[in-house]
Amino acid sequence: MKKPVVETLLTPALFELYNEGIEKKNVVVIDILRATTTICVAFENGAAEMAPVATPEEAETLRKTGYLAAAERNGNTVPGFEFGNSPQEFTQNRVAGKKIAFTTTNGTRALQLSHAAANVYIGSFLNIDALAQKLLTDNLDTILFCAGWKDKVNIEDTLFAGALADRIKHQFEAGGDAVMIARDLYEFAKPNIADYLQKASHVQRFKTLHVESDLDVCLKLNTSINIPVYKNNCIKLPNNESVHI
Amino acid sequence: MKKPVVETLLTPALFELYNEGIEKKNVVVIDILRATTTICVAFENGAAEMAPVATPEEAETLRKTGYLAAAERNGNTVPGFEFGNSPQEFTQNRVAGKKIAFTTTNGTRALQLSHAAANVYIGSFLNIDALAQKLLTDNLDTILFCAGWKDKVNIEDTLFAGALADRIKHQFEAGGDAVMIARDLYEFAKPNIADYLQKASHVQRFKTLHVESDLDVCLKLNTSINIPVYKNNCIKLPNNESVHI
Repeated sequence: MKKPVVETLLTPALFELYNEGIEKKNVVVIDILRATTTICVAFENGAAEMAPVATPEEAETLRKTGYLAAAERNGNTVPGFEFGNSPQEFTQNRVAGKKIAFTTTNGTRALQLSHAAANVYIGSFLNIDALAQKLLTDNLDTILFCAGWKDKVNIEDTLFAGALADRIKHQFEAGGDAVMIARDLYEFAKPNIADYLQKASHVQRFKTLHVESDLDVCLKLNTSINIPVYKNNCIKLPNNESVHI
Repeated sequence: MKKPVVETLLTPALFELYNEGIEKKNVVVIDILRATTTICVAFENGAAEMAPVATPEEAETLRKTGYLAAAERNGNTVPGFEFGNSPQEFTQNRVAGKKIAFTTTNGTRALQLSHAAANVYIGSFLNIDALAQKLLTDNLDTILFCAGWKDKVNIEDTLFAGALADRIKHQFEAGGDAVMIARDLYEFAKPNIADYLQKASHVQRFKTLHVESDLDVCLKLNTSINIPVYKNNCIKLPNNESVHI
């Protein structure tokens, strides 16, 4: 029996090369520092819904209908919004039962591009094993979609794509060289991912922004078995309820 | 004193992100399997000039003015042309003193996109150390431009970019994550590059085309100290004369 294919899309700028037949494929959207990590934290802490939007203005519009709003540009919280993009802000007492509109530099764009896929899953180190298990169960062709940084390739998303591809490699065929590059980068970095990522441009940016402690949160492994799903312009848990480990 | 910056452009599809200020930068065009390797072999064997063109029709036009013509599409020689894209065809008795028009799937496009750069150098494992020395001497911001495969990232060009970036790392600053990904891929593959590249999609394609022996030629290290330069739509050696090791 033919194995399903796993591909790695290294930046949104290359999306058109991977778009064909997407309605029959799973997509995992990856924005490790920090959008997709933050989404996983928010659902783990009981958020009811997250609505990704393209601009702070759209977030502001949803805010008037009862949403909380999170907005970040170039790593900073947009003034006047409840949240930025730090996962540490999305605590249980602030998000449980809430609907949250959010906009980020790269993650929102990757989500919106993926809308036509069979399923769009939110991936982070926090739910990586649950996600791998889901991909194995679904057994569909899969695109690991790295949000990157302003259309350029980044290390942390590529590394995560490699870690996820590695976990499903026995059941999936590698489609193209990018997924093999990602897997080998993960193999190279695996002995100490936190140390390895010190060289990433975005981690350097974190130091300037004084949010280094976010990195530890973003690299925690398997703290969640929830897999947020993007559908009809919003992100929810399939059963609309967090499951706790 | 500020170090010059080295960036890696992983596919022509991302060129616009790297185009700003290109007139002050060096570009190394990389199409290891096989266009830039073949160019290095042709000059090593005494070719007078190589003219990259976009289509077999343009190659045919130049052929009528006295050029020999090489054309490859999807790895095969175009019927009726003197050469395909195998470096083993470009022997001294066939190319010495000749002008050759050539068109390839990915290499020509990368060359043409780079035309505005300060210098456009042709890179391959055959001249890698000479090229590294040239970049160190020039001391300009440098883009390592991987030709890729139909706008997707490929392993062999990324690996070469990493090998070259590694050779100049003490004098250059890494610009962005892509160059670090390339360097670490090289670090990972270094113990046995030929074995490592067996997984590359294009090497798999070689097996289908029965041109596996080209791979050995393409991975030979430092058989040439000539650095072909692309300028005014053609490639020449700067002194118009091959230097032999």
